Amino acid sequence: MTEKHETVLRSASKEVVIGHGRRFCLIGERINPTGRRIFQEQLRNGDMSAIERDVRAQVEGGADVLDVNMGVPLTDEPDLLAKAIRMVQGLTDLPICIDSSVVEALEAGLQAYEGRALVNSVTAEDDRMELILPLVKKYDAAIIALPNDADEIPMEADRRLELVQHVVDVATGEYGIAKGDIVIDPLAMPIGADTTTALTAFETMRRIRDEHGLNMTCGASNVSFGMPDRHSLGAAFLPMAMQAGLTSAIMDVRTPQIVTAVKAADLLLGHDEWGGSWITAHRARQAAVAG
Amino acid sequence: MTEKHETVLRSASKEVVIGHGRRFCLIGERINPTGRRIFQEQLRNGDMSAIERDVRAQVEGGADVLDVNMGVPLTDEPDLLAKAIRMVQGLTDLPICIDSSVVEALEAGLQAYEGRALVNSVTAEDDRMELILPLVKKYDAAIIALPNDADEIPMEADRRLELVQHVVDVATGEYGIAKGDIVIDPLAMPIGADTTTALTAFETMRRIRDEHGLNMTCGASNVSFGMPDRHSLGAAFLPMAMQAGLTSAIMDVRTPQIVTAVKAADLLLGHDEWGGSWITAHRARQAAVAG
Repeated sequence: MTEKHETVLRSASKEVVIGHGRRFCLIGERINPTGRRIFQEQLRNGDMSAIERDVRAQVEGGADVLDVNMGVPLTDEPDLLAKAIRMVQGLTDLPICIDSSVVEALEAGLQAYEGRALVNSVTAEDDRMELILPLVKKYDAAIIALPNDADEIPMEADRRLELVQHVVDVATGEYGIAKGDIVIDPLAMPIGADTTTALTAFETMRRIRDEHGLNMTCGASNVSFGMPDRHSLGAAFLPMAMQAGLTSAIMDVRTPQIVTAVKAADLLLGHDEWGGSWITAHRARQAAVAG
Repeated sequence: MTEKHETVLRSASKEVVIGHGRRFCLIGERINPTGRRIFQEQLRNGDMSAIERDVRAQVEGGADVLDVNMGVPLTDEPDLLAKAIRMVQGLTDLPICIDSSVVEALEAGLQAYEGRALVNSVTAEDDRMELILPLVKKYDAAIIALPNDADEIPMEADRRLELVQHVVDVATGEYGIAKGDIVIDPLAMPIGADTTTALTAFETMRRIRDEHGLNMTCGASNVSFGMPDRHSLGAAFLPMAMQAGLTSAIMDVRTPQIVTAVKAADLLLGHDEWGGSWITAHRARQAAVAG
């Protein structure tokens, strides 16, 4: 049995541990201007007030960690991301996932963050790892790694596992990053483009769990992209993915159907002793409806 | 790779095939007086009119097969079951699952049925197999087999697999029943009594699929017994069970949340080419709402 690794994230005052056999970790995806034109416009004008509402909604929805992305074209992304991270830290004690494709923005975010962040993300490309992994080590963070390289997003689990091995070898061997601080994105692609994509994702998850014991996260809404009734697809996908070894997801925690599905799967997988969380959450929902 | 077996059920005019890699088979559980006092009273008085409504609701809900149980105390169950089966055959062309713990009722049901029935059920007890398996062979039916014996419902997958092996040996070796006609119930017990029961069920399912290639069915609502929000638990349990190898379930097909979860899992498992069924079902729901 491969050793199962744990990923410890911290804010200034709160610790969250991601691990196999633990409650699933919900990473709120909402603080992200991608596809939100009004929010982009506000951010360009220096108006960050929407973040306050987004933080509140995600805390209420049950987020364990908040992803913060400030990828707005024609802005100073490093500066904006640092500001957003300072702001979010003032609004909640949840740990933060610092999300950018711009290395300077990741570093500015890490500098602004008090705690142990999750960095989103690095690919298996050597030049990207060379830029990002030293920052992960320097700031004592954890990193989300995607098993794709410059050439392709591989559609076979075998190739994804090869790239996982490469990332693990480089991150642990060259940069001294602990296995527990490597969180793999097994790559869930839209089912509408190819009805085998979820099967490939599940196989990749099982093998990453069984062969590496690493934690995993993925963009939970990718799989339903372009299909109708996306919430029902997400609510089926996540329990199946959790059974295959997924230990966290970057997801819309404001959707009760999907959050409830995750909590049900936690109960069924033995992560909720005596069903206490399930019963408590049900009572809270009833109280909210009643009053 | 173990050969995967198919179970062929037929009414007078319709065939349903249960199999790994195929759309999940929904067996409607509603024509059953257990826990329904008014229905029991009606049946005792010879009033079978409720069956008509139950058939209609289950056909509309998407049932592939209908389970028919007439276990009412202080009645002539063989006579009642034969009547109910004749009546259901007049109302729908769906194949029937003949459900009784009384051997004479099973035989009366098989005599009344025109087609290839599923018989529910036999345990791994030799005296029960000796009574029921000759009927299954004689009437060319398929059989649901439970891996428990007189002593116990085993709580370990190992013991369940031993009993599965025993049933398969007896059914194929002594009665010449084809493996495809043996449908195993992996035994899903209430999660509220013990939070490891679903894990045991999933392990049992995976091993029955991988080691025997047999079809499986289970009472999908058992797992949530005694817990709040049973529909959400069922909607998470079935996709997870399908991923573990469950190919059918005896379930309440009148609950859209659970049926939709099964259809979503069919799509994610590659059983719904191009997502055609998913998109069609979504349009039908929208039309019903607009309606």
